[in-house]
Parts: sequence; C-alpha cells; structure tokens
Amino acid sequence: MFSVTRKVGSVVLCMLVASFGAEATDETSITRAHLAKNVILIIGDGMDDHQLTIARNYLVGARGKLSLDHLPSRSAVQVLAVDESNPERAVYVADSANSATALATGLVTSRGRVGTSAGADNDIPNLVELAAAAGLKTGIVSTASVTDASPAAFYAHISFRACENPAMMKDALIYDRLRVDCSADLKARGGLGSIAEQLISSPLDLALGGGLRHFQERAEGRDQNLLVVAEEEGFQILQSRTDLQSLATDKKILGLFAPSTLPVRLRGEGGRVAESPEPSLLNHIHWSQGDVEQPAPMRCEPEPEFAGTPSLKQMTDVALSQLSQNAERGFFLMIESASIDKKSHTREACGSIGEVAQLNEALDSALNFVASHPNTLILVTADHGQAAQLVPVESLFAGFNLPVFTPGKLIRIVTPENSILAVNYATNDIFAEEHTGVNVPLLANDQAFGLVPSMLTQSEIFDAIKTYLAL
Amino acid sequence: MFSVTRKVGSVVLCMLVASFGAEATDETSITRAHLAKNVILIIGDGMDDHQLTIARNYLVGARGKLSLDHLPSRSAVQVLAVDESNPERAVYVADSANSATALATGLVTSRGRVGTSAGADNDIPNLVELAAAAGLKTGIVSTASVTDASPAAFYAHISFRACENPAMMKDALIYDRLRVDCSADLKARGGLGSIAEQLISSPLDLALGGGLRHFQERAEGRDQNLLVVAEEEGFQILQSRTDLQSLATDKKILGLFAPSTLPVRLRGEGGRVAESPEPSLLNHIHWSQGDVEQPAPMRCEPEPEFAGTPSLKQMTDVALSQLSQNAERGFFLMIESASIDKKSHTREACGSIGEVAQLNEALDSALNFVASHPNTLILVTADHGQAAQLVPVESLFAGFNLPVFTPGKLIRIVTPENSILAVNYATNDIFAEEHTGVNVPLLANDQAFGLVPSMLTQSEIFDAIKTYLAL
Repeated sequence: MFSVTRKVGSVVLCMLVASFGAEATDETSITRAHLAKNVILIIGDGMDDHQLTIARNYLVGARGKLSLDHLPSRSAVQVLAVDESNPERAVYVADSANSATALATGLVTSRGRVGTSAGADNDIPNLVELAAAAGLKTGIVSTASVTDASPAAFYAHISFRACENPAMMKDALIYDRLRVDCSADLKARGGLGSIAEQLISSPLDLALGGGLRHFQERAEGRDQNLLVVAEEEGFQILQSRTDLQSLATDKKILGLFAPSTLPVRLRGEGGRVAESPEPSLLNHIHWSQGDVEQPAPMRCEPEPEFAGTPSLKQMTDVALSQLSQNAERGFFLMIESASIDKKSHTREACGSIGEVAQLNEALDSALNFVASHPNTLILVTADHGQAAQLVPVESLFAGFNLPVFTPGKLIRIVTPENSILAVNYATNDIFAEEHTGVNVPLLANDQAFGLVPSMLTQSEIFDAIKTYLAL
Repeated sequence: MFSVTRKVGSVVLCMLVASFGAEATDETSITRAHLAKNVILIIGDGMDDHQLTIARNYLVGARGKLSLDHLPSRSAVQVLAVDESNPERAVYVADSANSATALATGLVTSRGRVGTSAGADNDIPNLVELAAAAGLKTGIVSTASVTDASPAAFYAHISFRACENPAMMKDALIYDRLRVDCSADLKARGGLGSIAEQLISSPLDLALGGGLRHFQERAEGRDQNLLVVAEEEGFQILQSRTDLQSLATDKKILGLFAPSTLPVRLRGEGGRVAESPEPSLLNHIHWSQGDVEQPAPMRCEPEPEFAGTPSLKQMTDVALSQLSQNAERGFFLMIESASIDKKSHTREACGSIGEVAQLNEALDSALNFVASHPNTLILVTADHGQAAQLVPVESLFAGFNLPVFTPGKLIRIVTPENSILAVNYATNDIFAEEHTGVNVPLLANDQAFGLVPSMLTQSEIFDAIKTYLAL
C-alpha cells in the first residue's frame, strides 16, 4: 500500500499547500505586501467548446493542440443571468453585458446591464476600481470598441449597454429599430454619463481597441468632443498601428484603432457566409423526397480590411509592457477577443476562427510575460456560448438515401489538413444568431491550482481574482 | 518570494510524485502485484456540455451542482473519426461506434466500426480483453442493448455496428432502408459472428442492460437461441428487476431487462417532443413580417414505460458488488447512460435530462464504492456531442419587435425553480438529429491527478486506463 498512499497523500498535500498559498497567513501576508501580483484575464467572447473545436480543427488539425489546450488547469463555468423584473428568477441564456458584469463585479444581473444590478439599478464595484484602489495598475484590451459591453463592465456602470457615447443616451435607434433610454444616467441628472465618458473618468491606465467614433461625439454639456476631454484627463491618444508600435510614454493610453469594432483577420472565400441548403422542388412536397444542394465547400482567406489593424497580440504586448512598468503592487489586465461572438452572430465561421487564433496568440504573449513574471495568474474563459455547431459533412443517416440538410444555414470549410469542416447556424430566422446557455471553459496557468475548482460560476471567477490579488 | 516559490514548487512536486506513482518503478511494480486496482469508466452517450447544462439547470437549478461537477479533475477530450476509404483523412464528427472504439482500444477508426480498423478491418484488442488477460474481472452496464455500439466496442470486433445478432448479419433492413452486410464476419466464414455471439464468447464476467431480443435469435449454425448458448457458456441470465435484486451467484451474469433499449425515466408532458414554431401567414411572405406562435411551455413527467425497469444505479450497485468479489487483481467496469443521446436524436429533452440524472446517480454509487476502495479510478466522459442547444426563451433581439424563431424544433420546459428552459434541435430536417463534433468533458476523481492532462484525445483515455491498471 505504501507507494499508492504516498501518491494520494502527496496530491492532497499539494492541494493543501496550494490553497494555503492563496490564503493570507501571517507569513504570506507579510511577503505579499512586498510582492507584485498580476492577473491577465483573457475573454473569448462567445468562445464555447464548439467555437474552440471548430477553430482547433482548422488551425492545428484534428489531432493538434492550441496554446490554450496546454494550460494545466481546466474548469467549467456556469453562466447565469436573472430576470430584470424579478431578479430571483433564473434566466438561462446570458449576453455579454450581464456575463462580463458577473466576471467584473461578482454580481449576476439581467441581460443588457453593465455594472449595475437587476431591478434596483445599483452600481456595483468592479475589478478596475477595486484593483486601482489597492494600488494596482489596470488596463483593458479588446478587438471590439473599448466601450462595448464586455470591456465596459470592467470599468463602467450603466443601465443599458447600448449607451456607448453621449449621443446614444436617449432617442438613439440601434439597427433602425431599438430605442434605448439611459437618460437617468445623464450627468445632468446626477448620473455617470455614457460609457465613453465613464472610461475617461475611470482609473484605467490603458484602454486599447476600437470605438473611435464614440469619442468623436461631443461631451455632455461641453462643446469639445471626448478625445479632447480624454487628453485633458491625461490620456495619450493612439489612432494607428504605427502610433502603437512607436509608443514611449508614461501617460495613460487610449488607443482607438477603428471607428467601432476592429476588422477581423479571416473571412470566407470572397466574403461568403453560411448559406441555406437548396432542396429540390420535390422535397417541398415531402421531406423524404427529392434531393438537396449543399453550399459549396470553400477556404478561409485573409480579410482585406484587416490590413493595418493592430493584432490582439500587438495590443497585448504593449499593454503588458506598459502595465508592468513601475507596478509595485502589480496589475489587472482584461484582454478580449470580441469577434468570435460577432462573427458567429453573422454566421461567418472563418471570421470566428481567425479571432480564436488572435486570442491564442495573445495568450502566447501572456505566457511569455509569465516566464519572467511568475506571480501572474492567467485565466482564459468565455462570457457565454454561441450558436455555431460543428456538424457532420456526411449525415449519420446518409445510408438511408434521404435528402438530409439543416433547416438553418451551413458553411463548409476546406481545412489545411484537407478535410471538410461543416458549421451549422440554426438558432433563429433573422439576421443574427442567438447566444446559448451552455457552460463555458475556464483555462488557467499553475497559479490557479488550489484557487479555482473544477466547476464554478462566473461570480466565483471574480472572487478568485480578488483573492489572488488580495483586493 | 519564498511563499510563492514554495507553492509552485509543491504543485510541481505533487505532479511529479503523482506521475511517478502511475509509472512502474521497482518499488511500485512489487507493491502493485499485490494490489487490486479498479477502473470505473462512466460514459454519457452524447453528453456534451449543452446536455450537462440543460440537465443541471433542470435537476438542481442554475446555481446548483451535480455530483459530477464536484469531481476534482476536469479535462476536455478531442473526439476524432477517420475516413473509411482514406484512414489518414480526419472526419470531424464521430458516432458512438468509432468513438467507443477509441476509448476501448485506443484506435481512431471510421464511423460505424466496432473494434476494427478503418479500411484494413483489423481486430484491435480492447480493454475487456486486455484486463481479463491480466487477471482482472470485467463488466459492462448500459441502458441500451448490451450489444449496442458503445458497450460492444469494449468486447467485440465487427465491421458494422448494426450486426447485433445472427439474423442481422446480412440482408437485414434497419429502419426499412439501411441494408447491412457483415457476412464476412460470419462464423461460417471464419469470423467471430454477431455482436451478441461475441459477447457470449468474450471474457466478460458481467453484462447488464437491454437487448433481450438479440439473444432470442437462433445461434449461427445451431437450433438453439443465444440465451441457451449463454447458459451453456456459464452465464446466469437475469430478465427482471426482481432477478437483479435477489441475485446471489458466483456465475457470470447476463442481465437483459428489455427487448432492446431500456425505457427512460422522464418524458415530455403527455409524450410531447420538440415542435416547430408556427409563424403566421404574413411571415411566409417576408421574414420580418407577421408573428409566430412558439411551442407551449410544459413540464417533464415520469415515463410510464420506465416502471419496473432497473435504474442505472441499481445495475451499477450489482455490478460493483459482483466485480469486487474475489477480484485480487481488480476490475474494469464500463457504465453507459445511453439514452442521453437517443432522446436527443428524437428531440426529447426531458428524456435526455432523466438519463443525465441516472448517470449522476450511478456516479454516486461509484463514489460510495471508492470510499471503501480508494485504489479506484473513476472517469466520467461522453463519446461525442449531440444536437441539443440551450437557447434563449426571449430572443436577444426581442427589442427589435420581429417574429424571431428557430428554423428547427423547440421544446420549452418549466423548471422546478420556476423558470423556462428552451432547447433547440436544428441539425437536420429528418426524423433524427445529427451528432456534433464538439470536444467533450472528462471528469475524474483524485486518482487522475498526474495521469490525465487538461486536454487529451479519446485514445489517450485508453492509454491512461492501461497505465493505471498496469495492463
């Protein structure tokens, strides 16, 4: 029995020591006060296991592994939302606003809300505020607008995610249809103003991403636009990849590299997206009759609009360099690859694949940083699930000789290993797919041992970050 | 730095010691020879993260945890298949036959194959054969026919999963359409015969599940049916829950508690399955017009046919009791909850939910067994993904005032916590949904530390079992 007892014993011992290290003992609380600790939270928006499997098969082949697959700690994360009118009631499918709010504040709120509670509309302290108050540097990096819901939840408090700039606070129409009203959050009414205004007044040391247009709007109650206000508040503004590459400053940094979301890296051949299979006339009479033409297989190709856009890795490298300077107490950095989600909404599998690749490269930068800064917790997770499904190219029922096809839309991608990857989008009939409520992965480096269990809620990720940083 | 270095150091030390324990050193090889070690492999057929999230929300609520969520080791598993005509070519969506073959033999093969290689049709040694040869006891438990693809892969070798009994070896029509031809595997032609015949001649000590009808067929080349042959070969036949409960024997056991698949525990109200939303006439003219009637919410209810059926937990308890008797060297037991998959094919979310509950209860039995038999590795995994998606009850685009609905079929379930869970099935237009290619979870007890990485292939699960059992 000895050797096996020893094995089990050592594992238990290891877990105990690991948790011990994460708690404040007399000894560790003394050392921690002198110790910079960093958290790099990498969010793949909509990056559930389907998105990861699809991207992995394309990028490294069916037997390959991405850098994130090598992270030693893996957990599953329950994604929750609640009903705005009855916050006790569970809502099983989240959006980025409420799920990023759970990660950033620990609070489960209703869809569309940013840093505010369902029903009561209370502002809940977020990780940027808590970290800055404890003396840590803070930053956000996103391939979306820096004012988009996921990054916003880490520094802002507003009742509706769409209120990204002063002109969108009331009477703005989104997609020509959706009227939002954040007028209760106007500064004139004692509120904090739009998300862009809140970014400028937040403690953030760095924000890199898209969203220039939101800062070109006039500040509430002033004649200047928000770029001017940001400079007044000590931000250096970057507007191009060249600006980013040549950066040398001690100032706070606001990098805005596109009017709204940054262009993505990959697209379908000639811009093709998922398409409806076309059944023959006979099939319209009875489902078992006729035949069907599936969308032609195609390759992914570079998205021309991406040229000149800083990659997520380039933004990450700058963020890590800037935040780690003179950071006696450490830093908190949130990095988001946003368009895994956005390109899944619009049924563009190649787009999502390229943005998983961008996330994986940003992780490589983080791992490289950790090699020389071991007191750094890396967490990689998703905010919620998405519609895309990896489905068979040849139906399981092909032998039945029936015309089998998805009722939704399908894309068939020729992979570098010369097979075909079929992705189905079929959650609704309109122009944009729905999120799903599936639990999502959480991957982490060895700093997570003893800190992060094998299953947890998004609020518990917030707790783990607070514990690690002793906030 | 001391405290953090100590923490990291201990984790690394622990991993090393754990792997050390799993390798054969001079010391451990001596102790292992006198040590019973057991593996309990629990497979949820089609139990991907969507199935788990749906079941968890229904069974324990959005903030609840199942027993399997408490298992300390979590990994993701890549599910692979290859092309029958070109085994070098990846096929990204598997079926139960090829994926169970990967788990049972380590070999990635083509869909439909059981324990045989793609193209070459070689028989590959499986875990039951390897374990029995090393002196371990072996068993399979399934809520499907014991001759269904997943259990069959652990003891049989045949070119096509449908050849479950002697009458199905040639010219049998499945679903009135699919002709299978396993005549090359007939005993008269030097083959091993049908799956049921191979079960009888396998080294299995125990097989519990459904599939009585396959054993009521006449044995190839004989006048007796397979029940008679099984008794000749030393099996005690059980045919009812009473037989199972009153069992007291040293004989090998074959329990067949239904003609084919066992009835499941839950069903939709009055037997309802997922239904198509019904858009109004105006909506057929343009997608943005008219309105839509969604399927009415409903509750899950007990499936009347389940009455009298042994639960998966009851079968598991008997299997653990039988296999652990006089097992000087230990045992290998595979337990399958099969109808998570089958009820997802037929768009019956309540059915799948009940079978996740059955799996979770079987795990409780395994955990209870481990409390007194610590040298037992418990692994819980799925063979492949399935079609069901947890989708929003209220569309993310509800504010747009459009008629939004799935192009597939939807079921809306009232949960015990009084919310509504919407499940979408939309992978094809025929009578049965497709599998998906998503990576699936692997959960394990502490015996997996150092043995199972955070991401692996199904073949590597086979390797881990062999290593643990020193096969």
